[in-house]
Amino acid sequence: MKALVLESAKQLRLRDYPIHETLGPEDVKIQIKACGICGSDIHYYLEGAIGDFVVKEPMILGHEAAGIVIEKGKNADNLNLGDLVCMEPGIPSAFSPETLTGNYNLDPDVTFWATPPIHGCLRETVVHPARFCFKLPQGLSPAEGAMMEPLAIGLEAAKKGRIAPGDTALVIGAGTIGIMAAISAAACGCAKVFISDIKTEKLGIAGSYPHIVPINTRDLNLVEAVMKETDRQGVDLIIEASGSPKVYPDFFRCAKRGGKAVLVGMMNGTVPLDVTLLQVRGISIETIFRYTNAFDRAAALVKSGKIDIKRLISKTFSFDHAVEAYQYAAAGYPDVVKVMIELP
Amino acid sequence: MKALVLESAKQLRLRDYPIHETLGPEDVKIQIKACGICGSDIHYYLEGAIGDFVVKEPMILGHEAAGIVIEKGKNADNLNLGDLVCMEPGIPSAFSPETLTGNYNLDPDVTFWATPPIHGCLRETVVHPARFCFKLPQGLSPAEGAMMEPLAIGLEAAKKGRIAPGDTALVIGAGTIGIMAAISAAACGCAKVFISDIKTEKLGIAGSYPHIVPINTRDLNLVEAVMKETDRQGVDLIIEASGSPKVYPDFFRCAKRGGKAVLVGMMNGTVPLDVTLLQVRGISIETIFRYTNAFDRAAALVKSGKIDIKRLISKTFSFDHAVEAYQYAAAGYPDVVKVMIELP
Amino acid sequence: MKALVLESAKQLRLRDYPIHETLGPEDVKIQIKACGICGSDIHYYLEGAIGDFVVKEPMILGHEAAGIVIEKGKNADNLNLGDLVCMEPGIPSAFSPETLTGNYNLDPDVTFWATPPIHGCLRETVVHPARFCFKLPQGLSPAEGAMMEPLAIGLEAAKKGRIAPGDTALVIGAGTIGIMAAISAAACGCAKVFISDIKTEKLGIAGSYPHIVPINTRDLNLVEAVMKETDRQGVDLIIEASGSPKVYPDFFRCAKRGGKAVLVGMMNGTVPLDVTLLQVRGISIETIFRYTNAFDRAAALVKSGKIDIKRLISKTFSFDHAVEAYQYAAAGYPDVVKVMIELP
Amino acid sequence: MKALVLESAKQLRLRDYPIHETLGPEDVKIQIKACGICGSDIHYYLEGAIGDFVVKEPMILGHEAAGIVIEKGKNADNLNLGDLVCMEPGIPSAFSPETLTGNYNLDPDVTFWATPPIHGCLRETVVHPARFCFKLPQGLSPAEGAMMEPLAIGLEAAKKGRIAPGDTALVIGAGTIGIMAAISAAACGCAKVFISDIKTEKLGIAGSYPHIVPINTRDLNLVEAVMKETDRQGVDLIIEASGSPKVYPDFFRCAKRGGKAVLVGMMNGTVPLDVTLLQVRGISIETIFRYTNAFDRAAALVKSGKIDIKRLISKTFSFDHAVEAYQYAAAGYPDVVKVMIELP
Repeated sequence: MKALVLESAKQLRLRDYPIHETLGPEDVKIQIKACGICGSDIHYYLEGAIGDFVVKEPMILGHEAAGIVIEKGKNADNLNLGDLVCMEPGIPSAFSPETLTGNYNLDPDVTFWATPPIHGCLRETVVHPARFCFKLPQGLSPAEGAMMEPLAIGLEAAKKGRIAPGDTALVIGAGTIGIMAAISAAACGCAKVFISDIKTEKLGIAGSYPHIVPINTRDLNLVEAVMKETDRQGVDLIIEASGSPKVYPDFFRCAKRGGKAVLVGMMNGTVPLDVTLLQVRGISIETIFRYTNAFDRAAALVKSGKIDIKRLISKTFSFDHAVEAYQYAAAGYPDVVKVMIELP
Repeated sequence: MKALVLESAKQLRLRDYPIHETLGPEDVKIQIKACGICGSDIHYYLEGAIGDFVVKEPMILGHEAAGIVIEKGKNADNLNLGDLVCMEPGIPSAFSPETLTGNYNLDPDVTFWATPPIHGCLRETVVHPARFCFKLPQGLSPAEGAMMEPLAIGLEAAKKGRIAPGDTALVIGAGTIGIMAAISAAACGCAKVFISDIKTEKLGIAGSYPHIVPINTRDLNLVEAVMKETDRQGVDLIIEASGSPKVYPDFFRCAKRGGKAVLVGMMNGTVPLDVTLLQVRGISIETIFRYTNAFDRAAALVKSGKIDIKRLISKTFSFDHAVEAYQYAAAGYPDVVKVMIELP
Repeated sequence: MKALVLESAKQLRLRDYPIHETLGPEDVKIQIKACGICGSDIHYYLEGAIGDFVVKEPMILGHEAAGIVIEKGKNADNLNLGDLVCMEPGIPSAFSPETLTGNYNLDPDVTFWATPPIHGCLRETVVHPARFCFKLPQGLSPAEGAMMEPLAIGLEAAKKGRIAPGDTALVIGAGTIGIMAAISAAACGCAKVFISDIKTEKLGIAGSYPHIVPINTRDLNLVEAVMKETDRQGVDLIIEASGSPKVYPDFFRCAKRGGKAVLVGMMNGTVPLDVTLLQVRGISIETIFRYTNAFDRAAALVKSGKIDIKRLISKTFSFDHAVEAYQYAAAGYPDVVKVMIELP
Repeated sequence: MKALVLESAKQLRLRDYPIHETLGPEDVKIQIKACGICGSDIHYYLEGAIGDFVVKEPMILGHEAAGIVIEKGKNADNLNLGDLVCMEPGIPSAFSPETLTGNYNLDPDVTFWATPPIHGCLRETVVHPARFCFKLPQGLSPAEGAMMEPLAIGLEAAKKGRIAPGDTALVIGAGTIGIMAAISAAACGCAKVFISDIKTEKLGIAGSYPHIVPINTRDLNLVEAVMKETDRQGVDLIIEASGSPKVYPDFFRCAKRGGKAVLVGMMNGTVPLDVTLLQVRGISIETIFRYTNAFDRAAALVKSGKIDIKRLISKTFSFDHAVEAYQYAAAGYPDVVKVMIELP
């Protein structure tokens, strides 16, 4: 079938690729209708690797997708033919210790689309376990469905932040994930969410949402700005979504006594941590890795109107122009959040 | 000073009442600007008692109030003269076991306005510990400030519900507290909040808010209606705010496996509980009693626009017509949520 | 193979029974070495049913067992041939919503040994998913291994009780599960555990453990006794393990303000609940249904010596005398906790 | 009265010191009977400062103490004259935001014994709020009572670790606090507690307790040793109690996926943190600062026999030899855990 294949670093081709998938009794076959481009896709495209994950053989890209159920196994009773669904791209081992404790995202045996050597879903059809496909509420488009994956990360950050009603939050970094975290926090009980970055355009997009207040750290000292905005009390929750080592360890000074930090941004190497600062202020740290049980919740929040995801789709390409879409996304235009590919 | 005094059951008089309050170093004196009428006020007014709490001597009513700081003790450094504040009406013992564990609402020695023999605040001025007075964000009116008390109860229910992003909730009872709980749950991460009652007018007011879906149980079976609306999955969270024994034990059948119930409505006597139903479905129960640390958070959420409290103020009376205000509130008009008294 | 078959109510036979089990790639085959008799086994034996679960066809009994791995599927890499293991008797659906949130015990599709129409394991061999078999630490006997199942229930109660260091607990009911809960609570941070019952012999067995204080409610009023023993403060945690409706709603009066109750005992019908009492005291309620992720933890605690399980095995029968063992267990001798059957 | 006064760094004198304390209505006066020497006392003794806390005027040392109530204020109704009590040395502001949320230890206005400019309690008598004095259970000696303060730190670490039944823990550092944390974790549900250090004598003392397994990292690589001991699964909980920057960031590799770390050891400067390691393994971090609501719980656990505190009192001096006691403690003998001073 037709697929967007990464032959090796920088070698991307839309071509026919032979795929032989068996539909198991718990599976559905999905015709892909939309697929977003993620930062990790761009990493594989440009460098052929992310850390230890190296593209050694041609691999189909794409893991943020939505499509239509066109075939179903005999036990796939949570879905019907014709359903428009979004798909969770990582499948854990059924009865691993992590799965049985509800932390299936931590299972070391998870297979995840477009993570070598597993193919992604930027192709005509894909077979997937029905339990990891979620029917979209009426009115949501395939492109919105494809946005559930990055939104799921934002919601996971909000969930781990255990937001209390009326909390104030600070999100560091206004990239796609930072914005997702900020709108998630605002939808989940925060009265106000500050978001900091040095990129004016991204801050502008983030700040176009209600309850979100941008802080441009090109001009302002982060700690001083937050303290000023919060009557020197600090925020209840910090979500670090920049992945920039430079923000450590100072951003913890933005937290209220007894506050929490959720670390979302990944990076190579280590960062400096001021343990005694955390202790004296009673700050705890959570981390997230992907998400669990988030896709249907993401869709419900978008359906309700509490989260508007459409404005983050900056540009849409047809499947025939998928290579161009990747080149556009890789260019890193300052006002581009999400690049979407739509399939026929 | 002038005060609304309940002389005995049904004997309410606006008259001069001698109050001698000393301003301690941690206190402020507040000129009362607005005070709402609560269901408990009406109980004392009509019956002279609530359970064991009996009005044996003349008592000033009122505990939902806002006002202006007109004098401050030397250590009251969290406030300034002229600040418009709302006040938390219950003051716990400083170092009781309950206070030191963060459950100061459970302290048996709490003194609470307008709970015999403690006077309420429907009078010209009141002296109160500064730490239990909260400066209102700019733009909030005294009447909105007086609404922070009932809203605090709704937020406490939402807090105890530990809402996860995208949860679905059911609130039972569309009285003032039920509506407060519903708008709190909607503001704190629920994608959808069902609210049930048999009173059409109250359901209409509740349903005028986004994300809130009324269920009229005069016409519909509650469990069937909720199951139908949720694809037979049930809701993640139930907030019982009716205080009606009749809804027990069936409403627990509206909960999803692993769901939670928060019991807010108080009542005399016992209700039937189906323990095995709770066990097989893994349902846990939380209760609330008033609130903790909620007033500044309530005000922040109203300021942000996430919670609109104004539309719940059904009618406003001047202080001179306070007795009339109580009569009006006691009449129980079906479309009346909150009756407010404004002071000069 | 030879199996203990319940033909119908009261008709129990040790006989040859044809079983055809396929060993899947994730499975192991286990030679059963020991199997305890549970209260639910006795219910099926005497009445042929528990609630909606009716024995309509001959069914093999037994679900508390340990044995030796004698064959393994190719992916069963967590075990080796010859391992002595205990087995978790309930297998959930792999990717149900309950399993993926860590509540696999609540999955309505769980298949559980000796729950009609699923056969139990009181037979020569059984095939079971390897991930639900747990290698016993060196030194534990098969009979001790068979005790992990009832102990898992006690540990689940302790886990749901979220015991804080130095808590005081009250367990209501000194049956097998009550004692399991009490020794679990004592092993998990409680400084003192009261246990109440009207059966002197059972209280004697419970009280033979350190940190456990029996209260005989044949002679004493429960609330008064607990209040006296705790300087009128009450306990932090109550575990209801009697399943007796009579203890409701009064036992909640034994709880400290802000305390917790875990309901373990199952029963038919409803019990009276005093909602306002729970509210004023800030009491929350958890329920348990079987257990999750408990067997290896149970074994580790027994291995460590923190929990002594041996003294609860009151009498042991050989497999040839399995019918006699059931008759003995069904007789309900007051000093009998667990009856064990050992296989060759 | 007679007091042990630190005149300035290294200048310690047992001398008469004028103290004028007023007994408030909520206070008691206590005759000090025993007082332990803490690491912080030694810091002040040798260096005259800890970080920003500098001894500028003569200061009485000591904050780990027990004594007898010899006078009481009229509201001090939780105690009686003659009671042997231990005392919590830090008093928060009554209604600070931290106190009202149960985090009174984080209140920046806490006054804490022997933290400049607040005098300690190594003197004949001290006046203290009754609510921060805890009657010792019968049978505990004053010296044991004085041990409740360091034990409270260990229990706080165990509490923040939210130990699940049968957890495995690793404590890094076998100093006084490390041992306190290890015996607390073992008493609160851990099946096994590893403790690591390079000091053989301290490991010997720690290892003399049941359930505690020493790992000498002079000889062994910590991560390798823990992985070997846990079948390469890692531990559920790590308590960092060494305060040594060298152990960072590697010790997190000892944690199981989904595990927790509690940081107890304080230090100057920053340590390296591997954020992505924490994310991929789903590790969360808690910190502790002193303790909350721990003293009566500590005493109950010692009384129950679950925690033996006596063997950690390495040597006892009389008050007259208090200076000598400090010199002995400051010498840092490898087999000395706690040095105790007893008063007449």
